[in-house]
Amino acid sequence: MDKGIFITIEGGEGAGKTTLIDRLAHTMQERGRKMMITREPGGIPIAEQIRAVILDKQNTAMDSKTEALLYAASRRQHLVEKVLPALQQGYMVICDRFVDSSIAYQGYARGLDVEQIWSINRFAIGEMMPSLTLYMDIPPEVGLARVRKASEQDDREVNRLDLEANSFHERVREGYLKLTADFPDRIVKIDANRPEDAVFYEILSIIDERCAGNDIMSVKKDNEG
Amino acid sequence: MDKGIFITIEGGEGAGKTTLIDRLAHTMQERGRKMMITREPGGIPIAEQIRAVILDKQNTAMDSKTEALLYAASRRQHLVEKVLPALQQGYMVICDRFVDSSIAYQGYARGLDVEQIWSINRFAIGEMMPSLTLYMDIPPEVGLARVRKASEQDDREVNRLDLEANSFHERVREGYLKLTADFPDRIVKIDANRPEDAVFYEILSIIDERCAGNDIMSVKKDNEG
Repeated sequence: MDKGIFITIEGGEGAGKTTLIDRLAHTMQERGRKMMITREPGGIPIAEQIRAVILDKQNTAMDSKTEALLYAASRRQHLVEKVLPALQQGYMVICDRFVDSSIAYQGYARGLDVEQIWSINRFAIGEMMPSLTLYMDIPPEVGLARVRKASEQDDREVNRLDLEANSFHERVREGYLKLTADFPDRIVKIDANRPEDAVFYEILSIIDERCAGNDIMSVKKDNEG
Repeated sequence: MDKGIFITIEGGEGAGKTTLIDRLAHTMQERGRKMMITREPGGIPIAEQIRAVILDKQNTAMDSKTEALLYAASRRQHLVEKVLPALQQGYMVICDRFVDSSIAYQGYARGLDVEQIWSINRFAIGEMMPSLTLYMDIPPEVGLARVRKASEQDDREVNRLDLEANSFHERVREGYLKLTADFPDRIVKIDANRPEDAVFYEILSIIDERCAGNDIMSVKKDNEG
């Protein structure tokens, strides 16, 4: 039986997380790996309701501590209802954004006390830290240009975060770089300002390396047997 | 000018908080005291939206840590948008339930780690602890009988908390009694299992005593002058 493994993908706006995750899902499916892709709120009704409050463009009076608590609440419910059961059933769970997003966005970018943001998130997630976090690093001006281009092409709605000033996104990036330095065993920094293929194959090899002898190997054996 | 003072009223279901607070408001108004009565979410749209998620009877899958984070988020927004501005304008603010409710309900009654609940609430309220907390103590069987009677008379809707088992409400009470012992300078226990008048006049005298030489005196002077 596959062993559950919890991987998170992080990065600023326009880093290419969605495209990357879609390709990872496709590859893992071809290999026969039980895999679940998710992102908070992840179709969990309670978490969806919480997220609707956070992202409502009407809610301009929202205090940044309120926002941080709401992200932690949504995270908790998504983790309990969706991620944990999948890990227990042996899935590789790839989550688009997790605790590091709160540290980078609410902590470093909005200027809340980083230790306090850790504290409420530790309350929310307990011991459930990801085994591996892939941080897709991109200069904000490049990422935001990608977002704008995509929004013109797809009529994709621009949300409250996309509307923040450039300096905000700079602080987000600095936060991620600080996190990468603080957690070198868990977080791997990927240069996302490269062609899609280069980014994808680097990430695939990192995942394979981290999982070698563990779940990927057991999948191969199952397929052969 | 009146000096702002922050008072909270706590107690289990059916302790008579609402009736008491209405009488206090009436009395203070007669005295000409600037006074604001509130309770979370207190008409603050963001806090109202959060509270709707907590109290939705459909949300039976809600994890107790999610619930605790949502209460803290709603508390934060209500404090920032409503309580703090009123205190700065010199109001006596009486809040129906505050941080002690989370400690008693989420901590002691639902069995979450009390220190952790304090921690997320300290994040939410910072240094804004009430100067005085009146805990209206009543045996749960007496309080719940009052709630049921009121609901029969008024078609008042019974909420998710009213539907908890008796043992839950016993643990809430034990939590409040523990808090009263832990914070003897801030929390005053009132025997709420007495005629309404007796409870009211005791509480009024406690508030007057605590505020003597402070805001109540300055109100008298204003009226005389």
